[in-house]
Amino acid sequence: MSRPKVLVVGSGGVGTICALSLTVRDRSEVTLVVRSDYDLITSKGYTINSCTYGKLEGWRPHHVARNVVEARELYGEFDYIVLTTKNIPDGTSTCEDIIRPAVTEKSTIILVQNGLSIEEPMIAAFPKNTILSGVSLIGSTNYNGVIENKGRDHIILGDFKKPELRHENSQEVIDKFVEIYQNDNGLNKIEIDNDAQKTRWEKLVYNCVFNTMTALVNLDVSRCQIFSGNDALFRPAMKEVIAIAKSVGIEVSPEIPEKYIHIGDGFFYSPSMCVDMRKNQLMELEVILGNPLKIAEKNKVSTPILSTVYHLLIMVQQRIKEERGIIKIDPADFQCNSDKYSEIYKQKYHQ
Amino acid sequence: MSRPKVLVVGSGGVGTICALSLTVRDRSEVTLVVRSDYDLITSKGYTINSCTYGKLEGWRPHHVARNVVEARELYGEFDYIVLTTKNIPDGTSTCEDIIRPAVTEKSTIILVQNGLSIEEPMIAAFPKNTILSGVSLIGSTNYNGVIENKGRDHIILGDFKKPELRHENSQEVIDKFVEIYQNDNGLNKIEIDNDAQKTRWEKLVYNCVFNTMTALVNLDVSRCQIFSGNDALFRPAMKEVIAIAKSVGIEVSPEIPEKYIHIGDGFFYSPSMCVDMRKNQLMELEVILGNPLKIAEKNKVSTPILSTVYHLLIMVQQRIKEERGIIKIDPADFQCNSDKYSEIYKQKYHQ
Repeated sequence: MSRPKVLVVGSGGVGTICALSLTVRDRSEVTLVVRSDYDLITSKGYTINSCTYGKLEGWRPHHVARNVVEARELYGEFDYIVLTTKNIPDGTSTCEDIIRPAVTEKSTIILVQNGLSIEEPMIAAFPKNTILSGVSLIGSTNYNGVIENKGRDHIILGDFKKPELRHENSQEVIDKFVEIYQNDNGLNKIEIDNDAQKTRWEKLVYNCVFNTMTALVNLDVSRCQIFSGNDALFRPAMKEVIAIAKSVGIEVSPEIPEKYIHIGDGFFYSPSMCVDMRKNQLMELEVILGNPLKIAEKNKVSTPILSTVYHLLIMVQQRIKEERGIIKIDPADFQCNSDKYSEIYKQKYHQ
Repeated sequence: MSRPKVLVVGSGGVGTICALSLTVRDRSEVTLVVRSDYDLITSKGYTINSCTYGKLEGWRPHHVARNVVEARELYGEFDYIVLTTKNIPDGTSTCEDIIRPAVTEKSTIILVQNGLSIEEPMIAAFPKNTILSGVSLIGSTNYNGVIENKGRDHIILGDFKKPELRHENSQEVIDKFVEIYQNDNGLNKIEIDNDAQKTRWEKLVYNCVFNTMTALVNLDVSRCQIFSGNDALFRPAMKEVIAIAKSVGIEVSPEIPEKYIHIGDGFFYSPSMCVDMRKNQLMELEVILGNPLKIAEKNKVSTPILSTVYHLLIMVQQRIKEERGIIKIDPADFQCNSDKYSEIYKQKYHQ
């Protein structure tokens, strides 16, 4: 693979800058799947305001495709499939289904996504492919083809599996991706990560706490802190995340909680789950909080705050589903003992 | 007081039906304070759709006043002041301040309000007056002068204080109020309550749980139950309320939790805090949940679910305050370590 073919699936703030980094480097052939903005991007291209790459007007990667099927048909077999969509297993389609049309024997799949236990269904669906973990630390948004990239592009890349379980090509495909991604003069940053699970748990110390609680109360992180959030909720909840990590043998670095408590000081930043709730979009609740709590339950770790937050957010997620028409509640179905409600609901929606 | 004068303060669903019950009985002279709807009510009166009193068009009590000061000036000294407003000590004015202009030596004050520890500031403000606890079990709303009363008017009335601490006129003023309130043929129902605190704690088993959680997730009770609320949140949280009650020597009757779990089966009912949140109005958070949790803290009762819900709702309450312009957050004041935020905020708002 002298000039690998890369498919980037998901053209939000993260995916677009990912495609840009690869295109600037120009050691791969980059196809970006662009769904709702397809006509806009093929005619006008992106407007990029990037702390990493400056201002660009009318930028496009090598190829743009309407969907994964079209990408496969028009631009061939991909060496890398970089998935940067939201991961919502309780939503309308799974990540496995989204990329399936493009996966071939030679594909390495890179999940540049939030959350925990996201690789397991992917490994089950594509057992012969190497699945890499990409944790993005970028700050980047896409509104109607205008990319605002305020944090330097920074990806931490590693194999999800422990060294002894990895496919034999694991190190080779990681090294190759670093080579085609890392731009000169340290413009962006891609790091090899030998402990991908630890990196994910450390990011969860932020996401399990700030993403979830800001979504419940509809406030940015700084306002929550003004209203006493640091000591009342954030720090105690972070301890619960760290205890769950410990139950699977992962020691979160001791500086992590205070780093995250202060990472947004003065920024009045709203995390993605809060933004999704405001837009009435499904939230990444299961991969960010549900999956860690499954581990807590299995390992009997006490998580009173996170469990309460989770059960409340399940209700919010269902509210969003009803408002979007994904589910429909007919009161006539529920004129009975309320302890039978969830069973009736499950039967109706096969959940 | 052969024909007592009664002032009803608060003309929502509860207060209006309260004034109606007294007026129908016609053994007292009833003045109702009507603020925002004053012109409408003096010109057209109320439209009443009541399961207790049927359909009435253009109904008015004996007197209507714009505010408490006007009521005192025009309609004299009151034997009873019945307070049916929301009780929001963290809002713009306290209940004590609201009724103060009408309180004289002869006034008995009846708090027909939700929550706990609401009598203490009232007793401190008016130590010479008898303060009665009125728990209303009515279902009644007022939208622009149209009263929809779907649950029979039912008040449980008692002295807040233990028998040995009561004013000497306590039994007399209770008996008299029952006489002027209880209509013939059991149309409505007023009960004398010898254990007002127990009655309040039992109502809190509902309010601490359903009011608070539905406000956080913006869903009616039945939808929360469809999404597994009974076992995931409601029953465990009710146990916490019962444990707090026990710590002050009050045994909640054992049938109460299941009674409340099923009281709204099939109704898709949204409790008042949820309605307030939707209308962007301040919620009765402190009297419903904050005050019970102060007791829990003092008596070292573990309340992981309720405490989490409370701290989240504090943030929602502050969000509502900011949206209503009661407070203003200027990000320029908070360009520092987030652990200093709440101190800066308190200094700015003298809270």
